[in-house]
Amino acid sequence: MQYIDLRSDTVTQPTQAMRDAMATAVVGDDVFEDDPTLKELEAYAAERLGKEAALFVTSGMQGNACALMAHTRRGDCVIIDPHSHIAEHEAGSYGQLAGVSLRYPQTVNGTMEPASVRACLTDDSDVQVAPATLVVVENAHSSGAVVSLDNMRKIYQIAHEKGASVHLDGARLFNAATALGIADVRELTQYCDTVMCCLSKGLCAPVGSVLAGPKDLIWRARRARRILGGGMRQGGFLAAAGLVALRDMTGRLQEDHDNAKFLASALDSIDGVQVFHDRLDIDMVFFTTDWDEEKAARYPAYMLEHGAKVTGCMGGEYRMVCHHGITRADCEQTAALVRAFAAED
Amino acid sequence: MQYIDLRSDTVTQPTQAMRDAMATAVVGDDVFEDDPTLKELEAYAAERLGKEAALFVTSGMQGNACALMAHTRRGDCVIIDPHSHIAEHEAGSYGQLAGVSLRYPQTVNGTMEPASVRACLTDDSDVQVAPATLVVVENAHSSGAVVSLDNMRKIYQIAHEKGASVHLDGARLFNAATALGIADVRELTQYCDTVMCCLSKGLCAPVGSVLAGPKDLIWRARRARRILGGGMRQGGFLAAAGLVALRDMTGRLQEDHDNAKFLASALDSIDGVQVFHDRLDIDMVFFTTDWDEEKAARYPAYMLEHGAKVTGCMGGEYRMVCHHGITRADCEQTAALVRAFAAED
Amino acid sequence: MQYIDLRSDTVTQPTQAMRDAMATAVVGDDVFEDDPTLKELEAYAAERLGKEAALFVTSGMQGNACALMAHTRRGDCVIIDPHSHIAEHEAGSYGQLAGVSLRYPQTVNGTMEPASVRACLTDDSDVQVAPATLVVVENAHSSGAVVSLDNMRKIYQIAHEKGASVHLDGARLFNAATALGIADVRELTQYCDTVMCCLSKGLCAPVGSVLAGPKDLIWRARRARRILGGGMRQGGFLAAAGLVALRDMTGRLQEDHDNAKFLASALDSIDGVQVFHDRLDIDMVFFTTDWDEEKAARYPAYMLEHGAKVTGCMGGEYRMVCHHGITRADCEQTAALVRAFAAED
Amino acid sequence: MQYIDLRSDTVTQPTQAMRDAMATAVVGDDVFEDDPTLKELEAYAAERLGKEAALFVTSGMQGNACALMAHTRRGDCVIIDPHSHIAEHEAGSYGQLAGVSLRYPQTVNGTMEPASVRACLTDDSDVQVAPATLVVVENAHSSGAVVSLDNMRKIYQIAHEKGASVHLDGARLFNAATALGIADVRELTQYCDTVMCCLSKGLCAPVGSVLAGPKDLIWRARRARRILGGGMRQGGFLAAAGLVALRDMTGRLQEDHDNAKFLASALDSIDGVQVFHDRLDIDMVFFTTDWDEEKAARYPAYMLEHGAKVTGCMGGEYRMVCHHGITRADCEQTAALVRAFAAED
Repeated sequence: MQYIDLRSDTVTQPTQAMRDAMATAVVGDDVFEDDPTLKELEAYAAERLGKEAALFVTSGMQGNACALMAHTRRGDCVIIDPHSHIAEHEAGSYGQLAGVSLRYPQTVNGTMEPASVRACLTDDSDVQVAPATLVVVENAHSSGAVVSLDNMRKIYQIAHEKGASVHLDGARLFNAATALGIADVRELTQYCDTVMCCLSKGLCAPVGSVLAGPKDLIWRARRARRILGGGMRQGGFLAAAGLVALRDMTGRLQEDHDNAKFLASALDSIDGVQVFHDRLDIDMVFFTTDWDEEKAARYPAYMLEHGAKVTGCMGGEYRMVCHHGITRADCEQTAALVRAFAAED
Repeated sequence: MQYIDLRSDTVTQPTQAMRDAMATAVVGDDVFEDDPTLKELEAYAAERLGKEAALFVTSGMQGNACALMAHTRRGDCVIIDPHSHIAEHEAGSYGQLAGVSLRYPQTVNGTMEPASVRACLTDDSDVQVAPATLVVVENAHSSGAVVSLDNMRKIYQIAHEKGASVHLDGARLFNAATALGIADVRELTQYCDTVMCCLSKGLCAPVGSVLAGPKDLIWRARRARRILGGGMRQGGFLAAAGLVALRDMTGRLQEDHDNAKFLASALDSIDGVQVFHDRLDIDMVFFTTDWDEEKAARYPAYMLEHGAKVTGCMGGEYRMVCHHGITRADCEQTAALVRAFAAED
Repeated sequence: MQYIDLRSDTVTQPTQAMRDAMATAVVGDDVFEDDPTLKELEAYAAERLGKEAALFVTSGMQGNACALMAHTRRGDCVIIDPHSHIAEHEAGSYGQLAGVSLRYPQTVNGTMEPASVRACLTDDSDVQVAPATLVVVENAHSSGAVVSLDNMRKIYQIAHEKGASVHLDGARLFNAATALGIADVRELTQYCDTVMCCLSKGLCAPVGSVLAGPKDLIWRARRARRILGGGMRQGGFLAAAGLVALRDMTGRLQEDHDNAKFLASALDSIDGVQVFHDRLDIDMVFFTTDWDEEKAARYPAYMLEHGAKVTGCMGGEYRMVCHHGITRADCEQTAALVRAFAAED
Repeated sequence: MQYIDLRSDTVTQPTQAMRDAMATAVVGDDVFEDDPTLKELEAYAAERLGKEAALFVTSGMQGNACALMAHTRRGDCVIIDPHSHIAEHEAGSYGQLAGVSLRYPQTVNGTMEPASVRACLTDDSDVQVAPATLVVVENAHSSGAVVSLDNMRKIYQIAHEKGASVHLDGARLFNAATALGIADVRELTQYCDTVMCCLSKGLCAPVGSVLAGPKDLIWRARRARRILGGGMRQGGFLAAAGLVALRDMTGRLQEDHDNAKFLASALDSIDGVQVFHDRLDIDMVFFTTDWDEEKAARYPAYMLEHGAKVTGCMGGEYRMVCHHGITRADCEQTAALVRAFAAED
């Protein structure tokens, strides 16, 4: 049975072009720096992201970990949104792997209050306070909102003024650019020192992300990747798919965003369902309901039974994510299912 | 010149009884378990705190670090107040030393919302979420407030129900007991698995804290202390003073609390000064003012010039701490100084 | 130009059967446990290796790291050969990631002296000594030798007697089994609690290894893999190739071993070249020469110019590795090249 | 009962001068940098050790840990003797706290082979190899031998040539200087960047060591000490004793060395006892015997019963340590006891 799978844009299937690229990929041993396809992807990603060098990594989480390990010394402090992916969904790897702690400025849906960031950027002068050496911006933010170019510029300027660097967690970087109407992502990445960008998710590659930045930091990140066991031998297969993702798939994200807005609209018209319109910038729809706990608990099973895979209620919210595998008709059908479920006793 | 030093209760000078005890202390090599005074302190502390065993440590921070290292496996998650000492003032040591991350429930001045703690206590079932294995309660809280016995009991029950342990950061444990009118601290410590309690601060010992708990955990904490280089050879000198602190000084804390309330009252009557009465439980007075930034910046120097040492404005707040070296007359004089400073243009 | 590449068996190209399997692989999001091909590989690997469960990892190094993180608590000590891959070639990841230290028993080419292992297996009783909770055996050993079944049994018995576990670094597990004439690797893996085995190297998969063991440990390893950012979304592509490796390629290793012995023989007949016959058990040939430093330095370039890729002199030794891409004729040609080079002034 | 305690020089009792100094010490809160006695010790130690700055730490182990944390980034490699205290007796803290790994050059009783050190000093160019950024020399070495000034100079030059730093683990630094006939330890410490020196052991202070080096490194070490919970409030008591140790006790070590040589001579004349003369440089005597396991096991109890505390056989060796509490007569009596025990069936 074919399901409408709205759980995440990570469920995207690779395209036929990707499968073809993989089938014919020329590969070699990347530890000996012999994999031409991997090298091609890293060169292309560096250029596309406007940085000196890039590194292929297994996952966005591994890219973020390598970035933290490359930027910081153990004991440093990282300024970051408390609801960022690193803070909430990476199982504390920042402490285990990098030995750093997090400090939280005032934020709204991932957008940091500049004055608060400034106040958080402590220097090395007080032995009781960890020195802040890195600011992490997440754009698009996993709340579904994007951070404006202007805010990114301000945060970058403040960080550099205070001697800190900026890492951009761009797991959905091209979604952010699409939402901001930015054709060349370098407009965004000019305001960070390193950037991580996923090739999976909306771009549909099966596995992998890239981390880009200055040569010396990327070298350190390569060391970090090795420590994490993330080095691959004939990784060119994945890189072949990644190249297709980066070259041919970034233009299609507007479609997912449009579908998300369409779906949001349809959901919002259902009695007892309320969409969060302030964070409807990318391919994600967040909504809340007036359903009681028992009804909320029945929701995923009901949807599954009727052909749609959704995640359950988390922290009082529901999420649906549009992507390459979701059509306008799927959105209509999903909204109809929710309407029917909402109408049940 | 003799200053009125209100910066912290950590500035307390050891008493003559402590100096005498140190002068005649019988000491030995504690690594060979040959220091009778250290052993006496650890046995006394265990009994006084109602636990099987105790360990002498250099500082409260070291005691907390040993507790975290003893309770957790790397990768675990610790439920704790975001404004606790461990979260804000221990330079991220939880990540560096124990490899754990922190998760924050809803709290007010250190008192945790039980339902929120319950929601934070994730189990081991989701690979994306760090399992929560420890709850840390800080009582008295560094905001100046105490946590009620009833709240401690609830948190303890919820934690144990969910398979987690409770560590009590009792840097000012006897202040909490005093404020709560509890004569025997075991009424408090029954609601934790391990407890750290400082011998310095209001109890006036020059150096040291104790960590108490079940034998097996204290053994692990001893290992952790060694890793931190915290083992001492002839540590009996410090233990001798610590024994005086624990035996003879816990009864005197009411005096500091009374002085704090007196000082708070006097400060509150000053134009433009407003004391936080909701966290005036122990020896600390927190207040805010209507002074502008420039005036706030001049305040510590003004006070110093007139004979009082105070810390500057932090996060919009001022703090004064009463202790063994602060008399009622000192409080009067301090309030008069603040009044004069406040009246200046 | 097509080179004879003897640098490592990691340079093996995937077979056409692997490319075909990848091209048609059914994949899903493994984080949602939806990738049937990955699940099939893990189930097959568990059964083949005689363990309850298995986990796909990016590399042998990641598999070893996950094993160490799953088995140990920070501060534990691991008993291991000083010339093992973990000790010498994993960049100290054991300390950074697992927080453990290494202790070295007496060993010869990876075979541990049982009495020495026993002496190294300290318990938890001395606070000055890290407790040994894990023994790591590497078989085949990267020196080119294999460890006998009898030695593995002894080490396993001693470890368990002393309350420690055994991890088998089987990066070349099937090479060891082949060399020992063991058809079913479970004869070997019965003497370990967890085993890591590479699907790349002689088995020719492009990327990946598996870690197998008891369910609870593999669950912990899964957590560890996530911390390392090693979780994949549509990892089924790599798993598809891995299944071919594990099902169809283990039988072919004898050919590599035979070639290695043939090559060794040919090299040994060259003036000034001496093969280490005591560690000629698998697909690797180690030899030493009477060449001076200048000549040794010229060797890799000479070979490259004449069509063969080799690694340079390391610690006074040279290494050549046979694999799927190396024919008997390649061995003859390589020996001829070395003979010519040796004969040069 | 008064025992002859030869287990270690760590058992030394503080002198009356130390007790007097402690009794009258002027102390303050060192976290506020208000402890004049601690400051005096740190200034004096810096000057005496020929470095810009110094830091008081709880133990030699803590001093070494702070040095490693200050010198290295996580993932670096430290070149060190395999039988050094850090490698063998600090419970793997280098990995847990600093995230570094160890690499072992060729050594004899702590003296490193310069060419081997050079070969170990890998740079940052190979992602598979941890970069070596620190060399640790231990002098006097815990084997009982000292490292010559000439060897120290060579190791220092090689390290600096290769861009690495040198830390001197001088737990018994003044014993080394005494053995080498060096009046001013700065002749030794000129060949290191940082040096740790214990105030306890032969110098008799009850607790504490100092770490000295350049200001920026000592600042980092101060941060590291805080992370370890090693900061003290009124630490001046211990510093007062430490000042006596450093000022008045370094001259007396020759006496311990003479006693050790006397004791060695006496032991050597016993049938079946053989002293290691090649490492009889300081206050320690190492010997081996022809006793069987059962007899070896009875030895500590026999000695204790007759009034002498000794450690048992470790790795086939016995150790006795002379110190301030051991007289020539004690040495005679000890040798007589061993003679009697050796003569028993």
